[in-house]
Formats: sequence, structure tokens, C-alpha cells
Amino acid sequence: MDKLDAIFAPETIAVIGASTQKGKVGHDIFANILSGGYTGTLYPVNPKAKSVLSVKCYATIAHIPDPIDLAMIILPPKGALQAVKDCITKGVKGIVIVSAGFKEVGGEGEKIELEIKKLCADSGVRLVGPNCLGVINPSPKVSLNASFSARMPKPGNVSFISQSGALCTAVLDYAADKGFGFSKFISIGNKADVDELDLLRYYHNDPDTDVVMIYMEELNRTAEEFISEVREMTSGTNPTHVIVIKSGSSDAGAKAAASHTGALAGSDALYDAIFAMSGILRCATVNQLFDYAQAFAGNKYPKGNHIAIITNAGGPGIIATDMSEQSGLKLAKFSEETVKELKKYLPSTANFHNPVDVIGDAAKDRYENTLATVLSDDAVDAALIILTPQSMTDAIGTAEAIVNIAKNNLKPIVCAFMGVVDVSDGVKLLQKNRIPVYQFPESAARSLGALRLGVQWLFRKILPQFNLTYDVERANQIIANCIQKGQTVLGELEGSELLQCYGFKTLPMALAKNKNQAVTIAEEIGYPVVMKIVSDDILHKTEAGGVVVGLEDANAVKHAFADIMEKAKDYDPSAKIDGVLIQKMAAKGKEVILGLSKDPVFGHAVMFGLGGIFVEVYKDVIFRLSPMGRNSARRMVRSIKGYPILKGLRGDGPSDIETIEKHIVSLKVMADNHPMIKELDINPLFVHEEGKGTTVADTIIRLEDQES
Amino acid sequence: MDKLDAIFAPETIAVIGASTQKGKVGHDIFANILSGGYTGTLYPVNPKAKSVLSVKCYATIAHIPDPIDLAMIILPPKGALQAVKDCITKGVKGIVIVSAGFKEVGGEGEKIELEIKKLCADSGVRLVGPNCLGVINPSPKVSLNASFSARMPKPGNVSFISQSGALCTAVLDYAADKGFGFSKFISIGNKADVDELDLLRYYHNDPDTDVVMIYMEELNRTAEEFISEVREMTSGTNPTHVIVIKSGSSDAGAKAAASHTGALAGSDALYDAIFAMSGILRCATVNQLFDYAQAFAGNKYPKGNHIAIITNAGGPGIIATDMSEQSGLKLAKFSEETVKELKKYLPSTANFHNPVDVIGDAAKDRYENTLATVLSDDAVDAALIILTPQSMTDAIGTAEAIVNIAKNNLKPIVCAFMGVVDVSDGVKLLQKNRIPVYQFPESAARSLGALRLGVQWLFRKILPQFNLTYDVERANQIIANCIQKGQTVLGELEGSELLQCYGFKTLPMALAKNKNQAVTIAEEIGYPVVMKIVSDDILHKTEAGGVVVGLEDANAVKHAFADIMEKAKDYDPSAKIDGVLIQKMAAKGKEVILGLSKDPVFGHAVMFGLGGIFVEVYKDVIFRLSPMGRNSARRMVRSIKGYPILKGLRGDGPSDIETIEKHIVSLKVMADNHPMIKELDINPLFVHEEGKGTTVADTIIRLEDQES
Repeated sequence: MDKLDAIFAPETIAVIGASTQKGKVGHDIFANILSGGYTGTLYPVNPKAKSVLSVKCYATIAHIPDPIDLAMIILPPKGALQAVKDCITKGVKGIVIVSAGFKEVGGEGEKIELEIKKLCADSGVRLVGPNCLGVINPSPKVSLNASFSARMPKPGNVSFISQSGALCTAVLDYAADKGFGFSKFISIGNKADVDELDLLRYYHNDPDTDVVMIYMEELNRTAEEFISEVREMTSGTNPTHVIVIKSGSSDAGAKAAASHTGALAGSDALYDAIFAMSGILRCATVNQLFDYAQAFAGNKYPKGNHIAIITNAGGPGIIATDMSEQSGLKLAKFSEETVKELKKYLPSTANFHNPVDVIGDAAKDRYENTLATVLSDDAVDAALIILTPQSMTDAIGTAEAIVNIAKNNLKPIVCAFMGVVDVSDGVKLLQKNRIPVYQFPESAARSLGALRLGVQWLFRKILPQFNLTYDVERANQIIANCIQKGQTVLGELEGSELLQCYGFKTLPMALAKNKNQAVTIAEEIGYPVVMKIVSDDILHKTEAGGVVVGLEDANAVKHAFADIMEKAKDYDPSAKIDGVLIQKMAAKGKEVILGLSKDPVFGHAVMFGLGGIFVEVYKDVIFRLSPMGRNSARRMVRSIKGYPILKGLRGDGPSDIETIEKHIVSLKVMADNHPMIKELDINPLFVHEEGKGTTVADTIIRLEDQES
Repeated sequence: MDKLDAIFAPETIAVIGASTQKGKVGHDIFANILSGGYTGTLYPVNPKAKSVLSVKCYATIAHIPDPIDLAMIILPPKGALQAVKDCITKGVKGIVIVSAGFKEVGGEGEKIELEIKKLCADSGVRLVGPNCLGVINPSPKVSLNASFSARMPKPGNVSFISQSGALCTAVLDYAADKGFGFSKFISIGNKADVDELDLLRYYHNDPDTDVVMIYMEELNRTAEEFISEVREMTSGTNPTHVIVIKSGSSDAGAKAAASHTGALAGSDALYDAIFAMSGILRCATVNQLFDYAQAFAGNKYPKGNHIAIITNAGGPGIIATDMSEQSGLKLAKFSEETVKELKKYLPSTANFHNPVDVIGDAAKDRYENTLATVLSDDAVDAALIILTPQSMTDAIGTAEAIVNIAKNNLKPIVCAFMGVVDVSDGVKLLQKNRIPVYQFPESAARSLGALRLGVQWLFRKILPQFNLTYDVERANQIIANCIQKGQTVLGELEGSELLQCYGFKTLPMALAKNKNQAVTIAEEIGYPVVMKIVSDDILHKTEAGGVVVGLEDANAVKHAFADIMEKAKDYDPSAKIDGVLIQKMAAKGKEVILGLSKDPVFGHAVMFGLGGIFVEVYKDVIFRLSPMGRNSARRMVRSIKGYPILKGLRGDGPSDIETIEKHIVSLKVMADNHPMIKELDINPLFVHEEGKGTTVADTIIRLEDQES
């Protein structure tokens, strides 16, 4: 038995802190379990009460004569700590602490939370919360509503994880209003023990859960651990579809999150990376979360992105067409046979092409015939049906017809039954049969687009990994040397050496201390050369007038040397100047930027984008995290907006994209091998024509401060 | 009396085609007017019935003994035509034709529609439809529900215009479900006469309408007419706020629109331009339309973009913070006094900074004190209140407190009362008092952001116009010469001459027929020069190897001449080559693109964007239409993503943006003066440093085919 079964399907529950006073949390949760028809046995614990809602009450959990699976604790921190100790002695399997006042307020509360966490870990008891709403399992086998909320949702195949308790109540109300069912529903609050990954593992093995919705504030797992596990769950022949709302995306939002659950939200781009790499779909609003969950809960997948739209009204058909295109779908072109068949059933004023307009006076039969016909067309991967209430409209009959056709068809069907009142019976029938149904066509179209994205993930192509070798020993030595010298910034000279160990091509270069040395070096590596100031005190070399390019002869080099030194002194008279770097000019290529940064929670992220103004103004960059293989690298390169520039525009040939992919993989290996790398920037990297590789034109690497 | 009063507030109505058969449109509309409690007098017209729903029926409208304001016609085209003639004879003031089968099906139906349109225009009768749902006026003075829909909405201060009838029914249901009220509601179908602009004029003068929602498929007015009128309505001290959903935004959507109302949807970028220039807010979904309308219906405007968020739950507070930032808002920083004041009322575990967390057990008083306190802080421009149903929550009491504070406060307050059931009484109270209230915090935040956008429009700065003079006479002559020669494409030589007439600086250039002539010209205009092939048959000069830049001396020019001619022959052996253009090399500058294109409905549009790859890959361009003044030009330049590049990045000085603004205004004048210009491209235009102007580096101008 999974330990979390004790949380979701306990045979016995003790409510510690159960209260006789209506309106108190300790009363309401007890009352909700009782009135929710829980199929197990429920025991209130409260030293001051004889009974709670007519149920015999016990002074402590130790007094209960029977074994207890789950303890719900509603007590302030000190009382909760004692209760946890009692629970462990009693041998409970799971604990949910509903009360607040722990880590999120700091001080004593935080200390007690840590102590409770340790006690549970040592004794192998799973802990949910503190600071949460509780847990709900609407399955008739369990029928457990251990929450604040008096409303038990209908059973369904979608499970929910929320870090915010307050959101849960609103979500349950919203779900009830929409007739939306749940498999499991849990609020995890401070996540002292049980967190999203634990629950995703559990839900993935739960035959009653096909889709998981998450409201997330922050994640406390490394990217490597989270992504590599979740990626497996969202893939394969029995995937769990995961949809998330992640708050804290804005700067101000991140601050609010920090003052809330004591969580330090990471950068939003990294969350985007984690979700993309795990196969998790991210939404912006609760509406979208429900809309997408419905689409995935239907458990049918479009093979391609060509859809058929069937409508009894022109306007909504146009709206659906628009949103479909915006969501990456296309309107299928019907075969001649399909059009011929449609003409049999539809009046001459109908539109026989996509979107099919069955005309306002369509009753059930036109919908039925049209749907069956278009679904049998090989060009159609999915159908979107719009029904607006008009005089001849038969919402329930049409819904029945749709359900019957759906039973024998693998292609997904989504519906927009417009209007709330007139069509509600049809809507309920569709919901009961897990056919996604929406109030407006744009929601239906967008959800179908989301479904298609999910399918693309599910059936993604997996490439064999690159076979790359690195000179790790030399790299270790370069870094060790720097650390020994107390150096935390690797400039271009050492940086280039390090990059060479990982397969990067860098330019011949050497440091000149004076004019003559500069000329000697230039003559040796060959003209044209670039010259750059080298000083730990001058980070913005260009601003300091410290970079001159395209020098063609000895005279120019001499002149530039003097000029650079003079400008550097003007820029910062106190700067310690090491000299001037003489570097071979790079061959022509597209400028890209590659980087590494280390997040305290998630680990190293790789960044890629187009260089120069594209980074600065258009922010056309992308981050990805561990584990980084060839597939992720390829998707990364392809997902920037400027990708067509690398593929080649206007007769321009393609750039060497495969080498970029290799570099991305190699940078991640470098980060894994040398975790002390805090930040790395290659800007620009010149990408040459296909097959011609790349050249590092500038680089800077920062190491973490080494504690001695 | 405005003629449209006869449509919205008639004293007498004849329903021509009223039917005794339930389920028929002619029956249902009559029944809906009757049961809707219409305050005027209603007459059914049907030669085959004695009475309809107990009301005495007349054989034709002529038989009705009293004068008729409004005739509702529910008859197929031929019958409708006769009825219209009868109506005109009778002297009705307004006609609504509900039935379909007219322009949208083409042929006979289209011909009849045109005939009806002419009859009405000649007799001064206003006509709504055909192919529409009807008209609704919920005001108790009128109480008119002349529509398919049995549900009469509540009265409110938002009016609705829909091109799609089917959407109306769904929208009315949705509104009823949300408790949303309307002032006027109309479906305009084929728009044979009354269209959006007519209705906007009427609604703008209607004291009961503050906000107009439009569902639009296409617009048939010139941009000049529509924009210049609507811009006035959405501005000033008594503005009408207009919010639109425009369908047909995708290519496929445009096709569907064409097959629907016989409408040819224009390009989406032009609609964006029309809406932006008219002060109309565009939405993507019906949900958004309602959300934004609610915000504007509150009739309070934030002075700045700093808001306060008050919440009784952390999670939703974070969501609101995120969406606020994404919507262009900022969280206000409270003054010390505000924080001190908040500490008086709130428990120590609360968050006294923005977003203020009044904690889960907050009752009415904490909300009340907090709201009053933050609104009195000068740093706060608006407040967003989140209420989640928890044990101590007092939704109705909190709503009362909010209503009381709002009464004496000019700062807008928007609410998110989460949950559908528990908080519904509070929601109703807020709605009654026109305080915007939403189900989820992200909707509230986004709507507040929309409101802020509206305010920016309302209080926009108006600059004095440029004082520019043009050589129109010479321009006329250049174009006349071309037309005389039968030439519809003006190449660089004539194009540059034309641009000069409108204040553009072009480069010295001349056409060389042979090598020696090329050298003579180059020596005359001075090196370096650019050379370009000139041939009507070669439009893509670069692809044909027909452009060489940076030629420094006579030798280089000779060599380039030979090379260009050779490559041109390889590229297209049959091309007629006029020679090679020798042009002075432009001084350094940022590359932008400027253009004109002529839309058959809207007239000339001006395009502006960054040149080169920015146009091609990032599509960073913007369109604007007539009327084009300095304000529009300035907003246009500032609204592209790459604007920071023109303002100056990394020590780069600012470019001459004012000259771009002048060019935009001048191009529009050029288009107005010479309407035969079909297309114009200046690509690239080099923009020099501030004060140094611009240089046209390449141009092509196309004229419309002149019919002789």
C-alpha cells in the first residue's frame, strides 16, 4: 500500500482539534467529512468535548481503541507538535496539518514546522501541509471530504494539486457550477513533506486519474529530478496529462510569493523551461486550466492539426476558425466524397465546406449526419461542433447523437454549446460522457489547440544522442589554477581554453603588454586582428573604448594599442590593466549568444538566442535545464523566433545548426562536471555555414566564491 | 426625434409575418414582445390569422387603423419586399427585417435586398437587417424584447451591437447568468442600412449608454469617416467606451466571413489600426468583452497605473499581482502613514505592504478599514479586492462596506469575489452598484489594466500639427507623365523625384547606359557609390546580382557595370535592361521601412517598421490609416517593439525620430493628393542621428491601373 493511500483513501481518520463550535475550522472539517458520507470510520479528538456532532470524542489519539490511518490536525503550532508526537506513537500512516502559523510566519512557527518534518521523516509518516485546506476524494468507494469546503465535487478523472488553500474553495465552487468532476483534490500548503512530485507519482499510478491540474507557487526540487521523472509520466502509452498555473511570474508577483509561503520564486523563464521539458502545459488563468483539463480528460488525441468545424450559425463559426488558426490548428480541406455526402443531408443554403454551416434551423439529424461524414474524411483529425440555441435546435438530441458517434470514433470531438440555460441538458449529457463542452467557440478551439500541443509532446521524435568527447582533465586543471589564484572571473584567455576542452573553436590570441609585443603577436597569428583591453576592473570593454576591430597591419596595431591604453585610463584612472589581447578576426557568421547560469534550487540553466540587438530589444532567448540531451537542444534552437535567420533567409544558406545543438549539450555537461561555474557567457558566438562550425568571439566565465 | 428612436423606443409596432404557430420565428418574436411587457401598442399582421396570441390580427399593415413607428418583418425576400413597400406607404419610421435569404445567399436575394435598401433610403425610413435577431430595450420606459430570445436582460448602462444573430442568443444567456444588464441590444445582420457607425452615434447621444460592446465581422466605411467620428465619441468629458470583438482575424477566418454575410473581411492589421486610432479596445474572447465592459461601466478612471491589492488569501493575491504587472499596472508603494494606519486594524500576521493580506479570518471590518486606508494614499490610483470564502468571511457585509466607500471615492475599485455560490449575495450587491466584480483575480486585474489603457487614450496628449509644405504641382506632373507613358511602376529615379516633392531626402543618382557613362556619373556625384540594375523585368534586384555597394573608384565602377549586366542576362535573358543606376552611398543610419498600401474599403494605410530582418522575421511593423496627424504618427513610431533601437541603445545616440514622424504624415498627404498610388515602399530609409534627417536608399511606387 502506497503511503499516500493513507491520505487519499484511509480506513480510519482521527480529527485532532475537532470542535463543537460551528464556524471553527476544527468543527467544519469534521462536519464535512461526516456529512460527505465518508465510507470509513471517523473519530473526533478533543480533551474538552464528550462528543462532536453526536460522535463520541476522545481526549487524545492514544485514547482511540482502534488503529488510525490518517490524522487531520487542526491545532496551533505547539499543540500540533504534541499531536504529531502522539500520532507517531499511535502508529498513524498519514498526517494532514490544516492550521497555519508555521514556516510562512517565520520564527517559532518555522522552527516547529522543521521539528515536525523531522519527526515524520524519521518515523516514515507522510505529512501534508501545514497551512492547507485538506484533501478530497469523491470516489464512491471513499467519499472523503476532509476540507473547509462544504461542497463535495462529482467524481471525475481529473486530479488537482494546489499550493494555495484559498484558491481551492473558489475552484471547488467553480467546478460545481460547471459540473466538473474530480478524481482527487489536495491542498499542500507549506509542503513540509508531500509536494507536487510525490503527488504526481501517486496520481500517475492512480487508475482513476488521467489529468492533473496544479496551482503552483514555487517548486523545491532540482530541475534534473523533477524533469526526468515527470517527463516519463507525461509520455508513453499511459500518459498523465499535467496542466499548471504558476503564479509569481512577474517581479512584483515573485515578491508577493516570498512574503506568502516563505517561498522564493525562481525566475519565470526557468519555470517555462521546466514545464516545457517535463511535458507540462502552462495556463494563464483558472478558466484555461479547466478548459484544457476537459480537453485532455476526453482521452482522445488528434493525429494531426486539421480540424472540421460544424456550426448552425455563421458568426460563432468564424470566431472558432480564428481561434483555431491562432492556436496552431488548420481547417481541413474535405475530400470530394465528403462534400458530395454532405450535400445529401444539408439544405442547399448550407456551406458544405469547412466550417460547415448546417444553418440555423438544423435539428439533431443534420448535426448527426454531418459529424459522421466529416469524421470519416481522412483529412480531418478532430471535430469542433458549435450549437447555438435557435428555434429548431435540439440540444439534448444533438448531444445524444454526438455521444453515439464519439463512442465508435477515435478522433476527438469538442463542443461549444452556447448559452447557459437553454442547452444545459445537452451539456450535462456531454459532460457525463467526457466529451469536452464549452460555453463559447473560442474556448473550444483554444482547448483543441492545447490538446494538439499535448499530442505533439506525446508523439515527439527522439533522436539518438551525440557522441561527444571532452578533455575534462584539462578543464579541471584550468579551473583549479584559477581557484588557487583566488580568481573568480575567467577572462577570454582562460575562458577560451576551458571552452576548447568542450569542443568549442576559439580564435588564436595572446596578451600583449606593449606596442611591440602587440605587433609581434599580430604578425604571428596573421591579419586582420581584433584588439581588446584586458583588465579585471573594466567589464564593459566597448564602453571604455577598449575594443578595436579589423586591424590590417603593424601600424594600425601600434596605433590602436596606444589608443586603447589612453582611453582606458580616461575611463577609469585607477583600473589595473593587464594588457591588450590580440585576437584573430573571426570569419563571417551569424551572431548568437550562449550562456550558463546557476539557480540555487534548480541547478544550471543553458541559455540560447540570437546575439546583439535581438537579445537586447526582442528578448529572443530561451532557457533550458537538466537533463539536457540532443532532443532538448534541438527543440531549444528551433523555438526562438529568429530561427528562420539561422535556417537561411533570402538565398542565404543555412547556418551550422547542428554545431549549436552540440554546444548546448556540451555546455550542460561542462556545468555538471564543474558545478562551481556560476555564470558563463559566449557573446557573440559566430555560427558559420552548415558544416563549417562556429567560432567563439568573446567569452566570460564566473566561478562561485570558494569558501575556504 | 432621432430616426433610430423608432427602432429602440417605438410607440407602436407592427409584426408583419406574425404567426400563430409556436416555434416559428414570426410567432416567437411576437410572443417575446408581448410577454416582455412592451409599454407601447403591438399589432400582428398576417392575412391568414384572425388573432395571434389573442391579439387582433390585420391582413396588411395598411389595415391597421393607427400610425406605426416600427415594422418588424418576418417574411421571405419577396414577401418582405412587398411589406416594405406597404410600410413606406403607411409612413412607418423604422423597419427591422429579421428573415434571412438576402445578400448572404447572393442571386435573387441579393437583388431584393438592394431594392429594399433603395426604397428605404429614398423614403427616409431607417432599416435594420435583414438576417438579424432583432432589437431589445430593457429600459422600464420601453421594455421591448423584439428578438428570438425569450430572455429579457436587466437594464444597465452597456449597449450591444452584433453582426451575428446567433451570437446574440448566447450572449443574452451568458449575461443573464452573470447578472449583467444592458441599455440597448441590437443585431444588425447584413447592415443594408443601419450599421455600427449609425448606432455608435445614437448610443453616444443616449444618456443610458456609457459603454458599447460590438461583435464585428467587417466594416464598410472608409477609415477616414469611421475613425474621425468615433475618435470624438470615445474622447472628451462625456466619452462612450467602445469594446469590440472582431472576427475574421486569421486567413481561414476571413474566408469563412466571406462565405457568411457576404462580407469581405479586410486585413487584420488594418482593423487593429482602425481600433487603435478610434480609441476602441479590442478583445479576443466573449469573456473578455464582458469583463472589460464591466470595468468601463463603473465610470471611474484611475489617474495612474499604481494599484493596491487587498486579499484574504495569499495565492490569489499573487495571481492578481502577476496579471496586474502583465497588464501594465504596478503595485503602489504605500506611504509610512498608510502602513502605520493598517497596523492599527490588522493582526500582526497580516502583510501590511502591497498586496495587503488581511488574513483568512478577516470579517467585514478589516476589508473596510484597509480599503479606506489604502484609497486615501496618494500613491494608490485604484484598488483590487479579493475575497475568498473562508470561515469568517462576510461576503455581503464586505460588499456593503465596499459600496459605501466607493460612493465617496473617485478611485476605481474592482473586486474578485471567488466562488459562485457562497458569495453570490455580495456579488449581486456589487453589480447593482456598478462596482465591477469578477470570479477570479486574474480577470479583475486584466480588466483594471484595460481600464487603464482606456484612460491613457482619454487623457492622451495632443501635439500641435507639423507645418509642412509640399510641391504638389511637380508631384502631379511626375505622376501624369508616367500615366501618359502607360507606366504603372515608378522605379527609383521617378520615385525619388516624387518623394522629394514630399520632403524626403534622396541620394544624387543618374542612369548609366554604358561603362564610361557610369564612371562620368560616379565622378560627378562623388565616391563611394552604389550601382543597381534598372529593368522593369527585374523586380528582385539583389537576387539577380544587380546591386553592388561601396564602390570607391573608376575602376571598381567599370568592373561592377560589366558584372551587373552579365549577371542580369544570366538571371533573365529576355529582360529588357534600361541601364545601371549610379547612386551616392547613403551615410550611416538605422534602417527603417516606410510604405503605403491602398485598401478597397478603408483607403490608404501607412506602414512603418524597422527594416531588414526585423520586418521579415519579427514582423515588427505597424499600420495606421486616415486621418493621420502628428499624434498618430508619434504613437505609431513608439509602438513598435524595436523603438528602443531608434531611441538609442548602449551609448548609441538617438535617431532622428521627428523626421520619421514628419515622413509618416507626409506620406498620408501624398496618398490623399494622389489617390492613384496603389502601393509605395521605401526600403530601406536610413535614419540618421537626431537632427540629421533621413535618406531614402531605395523606393518603388505602384500606381493603379488607369482605365481609359
